Amino acid sequence: MALKAAGRTSLVDSVVTQLRAQLAEGEWAVGDRIPTEHELAELLGVGRNTVREAVRVLVHAGLLESRQGHGTFVRSTADPAAVLHGVRHAGALDVLELRTALEAEAARLAAARRDTHDLLRLRAALATLREEGDRDADADLALHLAVVEATHNAAFREVYRFFSTQVHEVLVEALGDRAMPPVDIDAHEALVAAIEAGDADAAEAGARELLRVPRETVTALLEREAGDK
Amino acid sequence: MALKAAGRTSLVDSVVTQLRAQLAEGEWAVGDRIPTEHELAELLGVGRNTVREAVRVLVHAGLLESRQGHGTFVRSTADPAAVLHGVRHAGALDVLELRTALEAEAARLAAARRDTHDLLRLRAALATLREEGDRDADADLALHLAVVEATHNAAFREVYRFFSTQVHEVLVEALGDRAMPPVDIDAHEALVAAIEAGDADAAEAGARELLRVPRETVTALLEREAGDK
Repeated sequence: MALKAAGRTSLVDSVVTQLRAQLAEGEWAVGDRIPTEHELAELLGVGRNTVREAVRVLVHAGLLESRQGHGTFVRSTADPAAVLHGVRHAGALDVLELRTALEAEAARLAAARRDTHDLLRLRAALATLREEGDRDADADLALHLAVVEATHNAAFREVYRFFSTQVHEVLVEALGDRAMPPVDIDAHEALVAAIEAGDADAAEAGARELLRVPRETVTALLEREAGDK
Repeated sequence: MALKAAGRTSLVDSVVTQLRAQLAEGEWAVGDRIPTEHELAELLGVGRNTVREAVRVLVHAGLLESRQGHGTFVRSTADPAAVLHGVRHAGALDVLELRTALEAEAARLAAARRDTHDLLRLRAALATLREEGDRDADADLALHLAVVEATHNAAFREVYRFFSTQVHEVLVEALGDRAMPPVDIDAHEALVAAIEAGDADAAEAGARELLRVPRETVTALLEREAGDK
């Protein structure tokens, strides 16, 4: 499996691609030690510096782990860069549907677990949204983050932060500055009220209702574009 | 903001950390060109090779993009490695709740969109699960992937694949070989039947029911452990 000689830069990239593929195919399991730098350099027909740089890329990607004096081990076989790539290449509607999944469940969990601190934060975020108006994306995001905080679930929090950025970037890319609907403040009020009341079903329904109009807007924009072609 | 002199390896890591932080803080927006290698080397007080290696790491992470002859641009400010880190450090129950969010919405979408091909695949996966028995994790995963495929949503598919690997790895790490409950084949049958019938509410309920027992098992295990301490 010697890699073709090429510029140093593209050689490192080739080794990264090769190792990613071997990890994805399950050649090594989580916790396994991968071959040494020296062995990989021989196997792939490249220099040790090239291998070292490629391994560094995969350590930063969270796939490998270097333990001083012990070698390099598989930390995870789930490749976050592949997810990022996949989400980037999915459509705006696909990404909004994914966001719906997260918002609906976050609302349910928040209704079950919110404490006094969460409720204060939610009310404050709602007040800011009312003051700043229905075009303020930051005030809108702050309210949604307050809902996610109220789940008291660290995995949810991380993934939501990631996707709220992603969703925003994908929508801006797909739709440019074409008008998105204003933020529906009354619907946000209903969501917060359901979480306050501890009503998981109503909270989920509220979260879905919030995303209904953006989904319809994106669907209509995409259909109009398909019609224009 | 000169970085402290240290070994070459840890210098590259420091530059990666520094640039990641600047991206997360929004110092540059998506589409912006970041300073040149030369400028970054001066700013950070490190060599150009160090900057080049650090940039490569962030290109592979999906955050930066190099365009030959034009410089390096911000591709995304959402950092997948941070999500991976966050999910890794969340508990097994947190991750199962996140999985519930994805499974419940995937079931709803599958019920609305499944075509003939999807239904054949779902029935085949169910038949394999029955044959292989209730301890076969691969047959179980194949059925869940068939549900996700039936959503016809590329973003969902990528994220689900990522999290099914993550969930598995986190549970194995957290629970070791302590007994997880067998796969409930009848509950899977009910889920597939609801998707066939095009009943989104029943499909969502089926997906939630499937995850109820694993969630209860993990909760009980964690409570027992907390009690032992």
